[in-house]
Amino acid sequence: MNLLLLRDDDFLADGTARLVGRRALHAREVLKASAGAKLRVGRLNGRVGSGEVLSATASELRLRVALDAEPPPRPGLDLVLALPRPKALKKVLCAVASLGVDRLFLVNAARVEKSYFESKVLAQASVDELFSLGLEQARDTVPPRLMVRERFRPFVEDELDALLGPKAARLVAHPVAPKAVAVRPGRVALAIGPEGGWVDFELELLAARGFVPFSLGERILRVEVAVPYALGLLRR
Amino acid sequence: MNLLLLRDDDFLADGTARLVGRRALHAREVLKASAGAKLRVGRLNGRVGSGEVLSATASELRLRVALDAEPPPRPGLDLVLALPRPKALKKVLCAVASLGVDRLFLVNAARVEKSYFESKVLAQASVDELFSLGLEQARDTVPPRLMVRERFRPFVEDELDALLGPKAARLVAHPVAPKAVAVRPGRVALAIGPEGGWVDFELELLAARGFVPFSLGERILRVEVAVPYALGLLRR
Repeated sequence: MNLLLLRDDDFLADGTARLVGRRALHAREVLKASAGAKLRVGRLNGRVGSGEVLSATASELRLRVALDAEPPPRPGLDLVLALPRPKALKKVLCAVASLGVDRLFLVNAARVEKSYFESKVLAQASVDELFSLGLEQARDTVPPRLMVRERFRPFVEDELDALLGPKAARLVAHPVAPKAVAVRPGRVALAIGPEGGWVDFELELLAARGFVPFSLGERILRVEVAVPYALGLLRR
Repeated sequence: MNLLLLRDDDFLADGTARLVGRRALHAREVLKASAGAKLRVGRLNGRVGSGEVLSATASELRLRVALDAEPPPRPGLDLVLALPRPKALKKVLCAVASLGVDRLFLVNAARVEKSYFESKVLAQASVDELFSLGLEQARDTVPPRLMVRERFRPFVEDELDALLGPKAARLVAHPVAPKAVAVRPGRVALAIGPEGGWVDFELELLAARGFVPFSLGERILRVEVAVPYALGLLRR
């Protein structure tokens, strides 16, 4: 944890913050917080700064908070991702929050197992927790917005254009495609398929909405490796 | 498993291959291999091709093998990495094999816990297994060469120049450094520190050996995210 993430309901009427549970315990046991110490903090969806410890026990942490800086800049990227298996999904949710992805669209695909949509990892509390871990790691405060779509075709045909707007470059990762990719400055929407790849029908639907295929290389990468690799590749 | 990795001692005198254990079970249970089927195979440190199933039980797989293609091209990259905690190390070993890193130098640093060097993950059998998983994922046959160095200074001062040679570009990831990095075509040696960062003394030692600092961005990434992100960023 490189930043203590504060939520609106952590703040008391006098402007100080009071934390309980995992974060209080972490501050006390791992960060060795004691009265007078300064901790790096941020307010969920807000600014970052420092928190002066007023008191710290294993069950309660009191802070005087000064939020004086913006969270780190974002790469301006939305990710359309075929829903991974639950174990990989956990890692991906944490990673995309760390990497500053703006919106994560988890979608169905022919090579996605239907049962993945029943995963407890997709429960709101689980997603919030994994995004928080990723934000705390990267010292960010703004989680990705998550949308889960179990029907691929209506999502691509009826929703995606309005969601992405006319200006974002649209790319789809596909092994059999040119390796070079020229991306003009501005927002990017990136689609990454299941480990078995997109099927032709899915590629055609994406192409009809302006998604240009490019290759991550001949190597088939696990999704938790492919996502940061692709984001590094597209960093401007 | 996207490729069945064969070792020299899997081959019988008549040129066919005989597999037992995990790979035989996987071929039978997951790939549903039966006589006449073709499987994608590769020979450790050699070529890739196909294997025609001669017989398949849960305990033994017999293949007639034709190796007619080269494994995927490699990015030409050596990685100097501060030894991560064992749980992250497992993921990193698998990922660097998938990504085609040529040499992995796992080194000590001021912010590395000494106990990490005692980890069972570093045992030869464990490393071989994790590299194999990464190779099978990426359809490669050539594992990284691993060197573990518990003393950072003598490694950098006395060994590194000879290991890297005069031609490779040398880069060290460091948060407080220019973001842009211009890398000429050719080999790259990349140094990535512990999650707490390199200390000044370590940066000075690396700088004295020609390592140019560059930044992965303001976001502090977990090592298993930072490594593929950095490799994507440096892909030429």
